[in-house]
Amino acid sequence: MSKFVYMFNEGDKSMKNLLGGKGANLSEMTNLGLPIPQGFTVTTEACIKYYDDGEMLSDEVLAQIDDAIAELEKINGKNFGDNSSPLLVSVRSGARVSMPGMMDTVLNLGLNDEVVEGFAKATENPRFAYDSYRRFIQMFSDVVKGLPKSQFERVLDDIKEKKGFESDLELSADDLKEVVEAFKALYKKHEGSEFPQDPKAQLLDSIKAVFGSWNNERAVIYRRMNDISGKWGTAVNVQTMVYGNMGDTSGTGVAFTRNPSTGEAGIYGEYLLNAQGEDVVAGIRTPEPIKRLEDDMPEVYKEFMDIADRLEDHYKDMQDMEFTIENKKLYFLQTRNGKRTAQAALRIAVDLVKEGKVTEEEALLKVEPKQLDQLLHPMFDVKALADAEVHGKGLPASPGAAAGRVYFNADTAVEAKKRGERVILVRLETSPEDIEGMDAAQGILTVRGGMTSHAAVVARGMGTCCVSGCANVKIAADEKSFTLNGKTINEGEYISLDGSTGNIYLEDVKTVDPEISGDFQTFMAWADKVRTLKVRTNADSPKDVIKAIEFGAEGVGLCRTEHMFFEEDRIPKIRKMIVSNSVEERKAALEQLIPFQKADFKGMYEALQDRPMTVRLLDPPLHEFLPHEDEDIAELAKDMGLTFDELKATVDSLHEFNPMLGHRGCRLAVTYPEIAEMQARAIIEAAVEVKKEKGINVIPEIMIPLAGEVKELAYVKEVVLNVVKKVIEESGIELEYKIGTMIEIPRAALTADLIAEEAEFFSFGTNDLTQMTFGFSRDDAGSFLDDYYKKGILESDPFARLDQVGVGQLVEMAVEKGRKTRPDIKLGICGEHGGDPSSIDFCHRAGLDYVSCSPFRVPIARLAAAHSAILNR
Amino acid sequence: MSKFVYMFNEGDKSMKNLLGGKGANLSEMTNLGLPIPQGFTVTTEACIKYYDDGEMLSDEVLAQIDDAIAELEKINGKNFGDNSSPLLVSVRSGARVSMPGMMDTVLNLGLNDEVVEGFAKATENPRFAYDSYRRFIQMFSDVVKGLPKSQFERVLDDIKEKKGFESDLELSADDLKEVVEAFKALYKKHEGSEFPQDPKAQLLDSIKAVFGSWNNERAVIYRRMNDISGKWGTAVNVQTMVYGNMGDTSGTGVAFTRNPSTGEAGIYGEYLLNAQGEDVVAGIRTPEPIKRLEDDMPEVYKEFMDIADRLEDHYKDMQDMEFTIENKKLYFLQTRNGKRTAQAALRIAVDLVKEGKVTEEEALLKVEPKQLDQLLHPMFDVKALADAEVHGKGLPASPGAAAGRVYFNADTAVEAKKRGERVILVRLETSPEDIEGMDAAQGILTVRGGMTSHAAVVARGMGTCCVSGCANVKIAADEKSFTLNGKTINEGEYISLDGSTGNIYLEDVKTVDPEISGDFQTFMAWADKVRTLKVRTNADSPKDVIKAIEFGAEGVGLCRTEHMFFEEDRIPKIRKMIVSNSVEERKAALEQLIPFQKADFKGMYEALQDRPMTVRLLDPPLHEFLPHEDEDIAELAKDMGLTFDELKATVDSLHEFNPMLGHRGCRLAVTYPEIAEMQARAIIEAAVEVKKEKGINVIPEIMIPLAGEVKELAYVKEVVLNVVKKVIEESGIELEYKIGTMIEIPRAALTADLIAEEAEFFSFGTNDLTQMTFGFSRDDAGSFLDDYYKKGILESDPFARLDQVGVGQLVEMAVEKGRKTRPDIKLGICGEHGGDPSSIDFCHRAGLDYVSCSPFRVPIARLAAAHSAILNR
Repeated sequence: MSKFVYMFNEGDKSMKNLLGGKGANLSEMTNLGLPIPQGFTVTTEACIKYYDDGEMLSDEVLAQIDDAIAELEKINGKNFGDNSSPLLVSVRSGARVSMPGMMDTVLNLGLNDEVVEGFAKATENPRFAYDSYRRFIQMFSDVVKGLPKSQFERVLDDIKEKKGFESDLELSADDLKEVVEAFKALYKKHEGSEFPQDPKAQLLDSIKAVFGSWNNERAVIYRRMNDISGKWGTAVNVQTMVYGNMGDTSGTGVAFTRNPSTGEAGIYGEYLLNAQGEDVVAGIRTPEPIKRLEDDMPEVYKEFMDIADRLEDHYKDMQDMEFTIENKKLYFLQTRNGKRTAQAALRIAVDLVKEGKVTEEEALLKVEPKQLDQLLHPMFDVKALADAEVHGKGLPASPGAAAGRVYFNADTAVEAKKRGERVILVRLETSPEDIEGMDAAQGILTVRGGMTSHAAVVARGMGTCCVSGCANVKIAADEKSFTLNGKTINEGEYISLDGSTGNIYLEDVKTVDPEISGDFQTFMAWADKVRTLKVRTNADSPKDVIKAIEFGAEGVGLCRTEHMFFEEDRIPKIRKMIVSNSVEERKAALEQLIPFQKADFKGMYEALQDRPMTVRLLDPPLHEFLPHEDEDIAELAKDMGLTFDELKATVDSLHEFNPMLGHRGCRLAVTYPEIAEMQARAIIEAAVEVKKEKGINVIPEIMIPLAGEVKELAYVKEVVLNVVKKVIEESGIELEYKIGTMIEIPRAALTADLIAEEAEFFSFGTNDLTQMTFGFSRDDAGSFLDDYYKKGILESDPFARLDQVGVGQLVEMAVEKGRKTRPDIKLGICGEHGGDPSSIDFCHRAGLDYVSCSPFRVPIARLAAAHSAILNR
Repeated sequence: MSKFVYMFNEGDKSMKNLLGGKGANLSEMTNLGLPIPQGFTVTTEACIKYYDDGEMLSDEVLAQIDDAIAELEKINGKNFGDNSSPLLVSVRSGARVSMPGMMDTVLNLGLNDEVVEGFAKATENPRFAYDSYRRFIQMFSDVVKGLPKSQFERVLDDIKEKKGFESDLELSADDLKEVVEAFKALYKKHEGSEFPQDPKAQLLDSIKAVFGSWNNERAVIYRRMNDISGKWGTAVNVQTMVYGNMGDTSGTGVAFTRNPSTGEAGIYGEYLLNAQGEDVVAGIRTPEPIKRLEDDMPEVYKEFMDIADRLEDHYKDMQDMEFTIENKKLYFLQTRNGKRTAQAALRIAVDLVKEGKVTEEEALLKVEPKQLDQLLHPMFDVKALADAEVHGKGLPASPGAAAGRVYFNADTAVEAKKRGERVILVRLETSPEDIEGMDAAQGILTVRGGMTSHAAVVARGMGTCCVSGCANVKIAADEKSFTLNGKTINEGEYISLDGSTGNIYLEDVKTVDPEISGDFQTFMAWADKVRTLKVRTNADSPKDVIKAIEFGAEGVGLCRTEHMFFEEDRIPKIRKMIVSNSVEERKAALEQLIPFQKADFKGMYEALQDRPMTVRLLDPPLHEFLPHEDEDIAELAKDMGLTFDELKATVDSLHEFNPMLGHRGCRLAVTYPEIAEMQARAIIEAAVEVKKEKGINVIPEIMIPLAGEVKELAYVKEVVLNVVKKVIEESGIELEYKIGTMIEIPRAALTADLIAEEAEFFSFGTNDLTQMTFGFSRDDAGSFLDDYYKKGILESDPFARLDQVGVGQLVEMAVEKGRKTRPDIKLGICGEHGGDPSSIDFCHRAGLDYVSCSPFRVPIARLAAAHSAILNR
């Protein structure tokens, strides 16, 4: 028989997966001999079983709960439902990792109409007893029956108003009896039955409600945002109640062993006299700083401080503790590693090492890689944010906060920037032509497109805040205003965006710039010492490279050459190439692009010094460089000296039904080898020149994208090699280089053994690989992925977090097959997943040599790689 | 050391892969003691080596050729380049399988200015000697130097005209000397050097030219059309010349042991007195029927007939023989199994069995499955075709021939059909709205779209001729005419299409209807006896099912329910469903579709009797059911009682960048479970009703398309199951059914072990699987696939012939994983590949239970499956 219920003295802190964080820590504290109200934990396995059994508690689980109740009665010397000495309990959720506020809690369980009277007598405090009962009715109704708290609060307010009271504390025992009756009436009206009187039934209903809350919508969303698996389930803790609301020698509080905002050492917290925990959280009364406890009850304070120190030493981390004082007796209700800001996390980690409490590696594990993002981008001022109203929400596409005036196209955005304005660019979706406008903007808001849309990818690369895919934003046809949930914002008016949450504010919210402390450098150096995975960056300009190297990048893993073509002085030239009618015309047009490409490459090589750089040959379909609306075509035709019909015919001939699966990547080079020739020339000539001029030893890695068949790669490789060899020979110097491919087509992974015969390196393009493995267009999947999350089909966005079951299988297959053919093949990843910690962990385990991500994610990747190195030993 | 050159007496007929068909048969005939001019074969391996060595003959190969020449000189007692008794040879290609006319031949090699004089003396026939020399100069120049034959013919014509001759036979020896000089001058003008005089150099150049011809464009195209691998290479046969042009006791001819058009038993062929083989082929003089040889040279005829009989008995098949009579001495120059029409192939196969010459299984292997297509579709009248001019070419998208008047849209096509006209529908591309127009047409011509475009797939299903993707057809903006290569055709004018070749004729070419003979039934019954793979059909209507069952289908493998929604009386209802604003509205709209779906299913079940039927739930994205042009939207909005803006908003919200990777398949059912519910109800209610009403025991197989994740399948399956169980329960009868999925997303194949936990059957949707495995959009790939063929990257269209290396790997993986989870899982294929013989062979070997293809391909699949069963024993 499986064990589904554990008394607190049966577990320990290692049993988090089974008992949940809270349950495991209550057991641990019990073992440490600390003053813990006793109780038991119904395990996460019981939760999973509950769902497997069709949302039922099985007889086996029920029997074990019965036994645990009996044991708890024995420990307390009080009985459940006893009118003279009743046992009351709290019922709380507790998952493997903390999900604050996501799941439900019931306090004071065990009260009913009779018990409350016995409880009043036993405590000699009728006011307290009825106060507890009314709280229980309200919480039970909310948590178990879904009857909103607000309705109870309205009833309570009505009674207070009738009596002319301002504070709950003015309510007498009799007033509270009246409140209880009113609450029970509300319950009956809502449920059609009396408030349940059987404490055992109350308990089972509450346990089921907590299990049920594991799959409520906010918990599902929270899990997706925090990479928590829906399969884990939650545990339920049933704990003897203690009371902070028994008068002025009682109280309750929350405290941290260090400051969770700044990381400063020293106790930090607050407490309330004569209150239950929910009062502190709810903010109905303003709590006192914890220091006041020293004045109020010095012995209790001393005991509290001793235990707090002991807990921090024991857990080797800053603790977040809840405690209650019942008639001068101190109880700890829970402890856990405290949540903290990124700044605090770094300081605490570094301090703990300095204090000799943890090793460097232990310290590394105390900081979540994703948290580092906070340090690198502007954030909203906390006070300003408290007053701001969230008006809408999109996808958190690129982190940071931004506020500025709204403009609807790249030109007006650029002009506004020149006038010195802060700018927010609002677009239906962005395209490469918007680059300059995006660069001018503090933040970008798009109506369409997901986490890997053009806007999102480019914004992350720039480190610019971006909220994408906010379908509720309706841009007016004249592009002079937009409406969001009923409010209209005109061009030039202020809005603010939070790219870390997706929140949209229709006002100018103050932001503060990030500060990188000395702790950051110390900490990251530890990470670099331990990690084995290299970290490169995706960069398309010298500016990107400089930024990324500041952040610790060890090379460029992906230079997308097409981004170099969209600038104002270049796009006419690539367009000329596209409308060419012969190879000669095309070559002539390409010739004009060489100086630009070369200059870009030289700038990047110089910024990189001797670090490697992977350059991808032209990837997007050619129609991306041409306009699609008749009006724009007419204008461009005039500029290019073509007739409308001629240009229109070119645009039409390039039209594709599914551009993602169309004429792009190396397929372009197969049709137009001269494009690959031009690019190969620019890459190698630039390398030769920086070597000659500055003595910099670049090793260019020429990457042929989108190969799916080895002969395709071999063909383009030969085209490239012919140019490369010629340029090097003419230069009279030696130059190392590599030629490889992206693995982004399923067939490339399936045939990686053959592909490796031609490729000296593989870079996994997991964006496209995910698209094709799932058959999801990343630009369109937004329309149905929400339903997938809601219905529990997917737990996370496969474009943000690598799907290890499917896509990962292809990656592992390609690694194995590639290494079999070419044992020294260099393996990396350059998809968006290269900056995602869980995906980086996969890359580490799959045996890749490096990950490559946008500059602002480099520190995250360095830390995530360090975590993987430590945890996978 | 490898052996690259074989004398004819060193090989035999089993060595086709090494010696090529021609070389192997010449060896075999030598072994049989038949009168064969001796020679040697340079192997296919030498050809492969030639390419591997950078288009060079290696020293090793050269040395073996030298040895062979010496041996041949010994056998003949004549020497190469000898002025008194010269050895002359022919040089011919000969690949593993016959590629008639695709590669090159040189005759009379060994002649030069001196040798020709000796040859004239030795043969005592100067006219003959110079005639041979001028032929050699012309052929060598053409084959080795690419100097077009036509230029030589012009020179010859000039001389004939000058002399007032009409026939070549009037030219005297001296005239021919003049021709030789003129030919040599032409050569020099073109090449800048004298005509080569060294016989050895002539030979080596010719061998290289034949190797080179393996990769000429027409050979590459032929191979792609006929599933011949480019890796095989061709052999070269160097054979002693014999002369049919030595006077009236000489001659040359071609004969078949049975009639290759009808299959009728008895010798069939023709010959020319005093001529070389090329004269017969070129048709310059009209040959005599072979029977005339009996009168001309009775002993020779008798010998010929004896050998012909012997060869047919020996090869157990109808033989196609070339022979030459040199001064009453008969020589066989080659024999091979003769090409034949489908009708002849069937008759010969059946006759050979009746005659006791072959077994049924041997007979089955004598008919190419693809050939059967000819029997099932109209073909052009052979005589009419001879006079018709090919004006353009598209893709051979659906076989058969058609002629009719051109119409440019479905409505005018339908009206013209009503008027009794034969109709050819010409469209930029077709969409589901064109169905009725396609049904009304004899043939369909599209400008865009490949072999698996909508037009192609639907046309094949209907058995209607279709030529797709003819980019040279320019349809006028008013859709009243089109131009093709300079000629304009107006609405109502005649054109003709050959869907088996892609040829387009701008005139009314007479067609003849197919006749299915008794031989067909006999033959197909043999195929059914031996095959283990079942053959089902893809069918969307009772009409399709009836046709397919006539052709031997054993069930429906794919019923695409969306095709049922496009008819005029239904599409308004599905559109109403799409614009619904609530689940209730949507359900109400769906309710109206049930009667239609049910009626269709009942009709199909009744046609099927007790055979199984796989019904796929709605697959295409919803925007396919709505118009996209503003004008059409406005019209539809009026019909639907909506404002333009309302309908336009719906159309816009459904727009997708890559519809193929968008909101379709089971993703629709996840968002709108009510659609799956409606369809499940219709499928099961129909089955219940035909069981009750007619006692037909259908086993509906409900197929959930496009699953990539098991939870997705599980979700939709539960939605379906709830309805299915309810309907069956209410019916009070028992009904078997299955629920399964299509494997068409790479991730589904990768996770087939998990998917099989929910799926009772897999049907491989290899169209989509190919799209996603390659990252090719089948609608767009046409724009670059031609370059892929030209550059040798791909040998065949992966949408027509299953890519066994990549896509096949996923299929095999899914078969293995699926069976591991569920050993009795039913496995089939319903992609276009289900009708392609080489893909069917793969399916047989991969262990599938059945293939499913369009009705007109069912016989092909039955025969292909029989071939696989025999050949894979």
